[in-house]
Amino acid sequence: MTGTVPTTARDAIRDLVDAHAAALSAGDAEAVAALYAPDARSFDLRPPLQYRSSREQRADDLRAWYGGFAGPALFEVRELTVEAFGDVAFAHGLARLTATPHGSPGPFSLWYRMTLGLRRVDGSWLITHEHKSTPFYMEMAADHSFKAAVDLEP
Amino acid sequence: MTGTVPTTARDAIRDLVDAHAAALSAGDAEAVAALYAPDARSFDLRPPLQYRSSREQRADDLRAWYGGFAGPALFEVRELTVEAFGDVAFAHGLARLTATPHGSPGPFSLWYRMTLGLRRVDGSWLITHEHKSTPFYMEMAADHSFKAAVDLEP
Repeated sequence: MTGTVPTTARDAIRDLVDAHAAALSAGDAEAVAALYAPDARSFDLRPPLQYRSSREQRADDLRAWYGGFAGPALFEVRELTVEAFGDVAFAHGLARLTATPHGSPGPFSLWYRMTLGLRRVDGSWLITHEHKSTPFYMEMAADHSFKAAVDLEP
Repeated sequence: MTGTVPTTARDAIRDLVDAHAAALSAGDAEAVAALYAPDARSFDLRPPLQYRSSREQRADDLRAWYGGFAGPALFEVRELTVEAFGDVAFAHGLARLTATPHGSPGPFSLWYRMTLGLRRVDGSWLITHEHKSTPFYMEMAADHSFKAAVDLEP
């Protein structure tokens, strides 16, 4: 196995990423949360800098987040790269979220970067770390703030 | 080796993260670039969404970036977690950059999240993927922009 990536592990992780996007798009909070290790560390699009959630807390947070939208939130992932060896893997790609906040005349679409760290436990891959983000524009605004780059496309 | 992390791999990656922060703080662009695989994929603090740089290009970009500061840019990493198996690993932690832009009355300090994906090639660990970011505040401003959360602390 030296120096080579077992095809089955890579395929399993691509399937997990597909299942993750499908569960998020279906609004199935339990199915999303079941893909995470119980003590997974998240670097999310929104503050705080980091958090660790139980599966129950993660599902509750997702349900609250879905509540802000009229209709489904759609997720897709592109340009996915997976590296795996034995029971450890990481994956990175570009993701797009399309959703319509309550009271908004139409949907927004946001491209962001997604990195996942994974571990195989009892034969099943679980997300132990996730990092989602947009970059930000380095030009300082008049109020000394910096704008998140939410308008980028691949 | 099943289910356990070889201590030597984890130690080697902690050493690499220390060397990365030290080289960045020393302004040693070549030493920083040498830690990356030639085709490493970067999700950086600034746009674009992603880029792949040769080592030469990465060193040139770093030198240009250092040119914007009066004096050194200091880096530190906290709360580092490493997972490794065989020749694949990933690491995640919180990083702080402290630097003084030319013309600025004093230094700024920025906390951000850092995730690294690594592969061991010919016995040496290399960064094949990096993801650095701040979150952004989800409240929309009057001009329909969103503010990067550059003021967070662990």
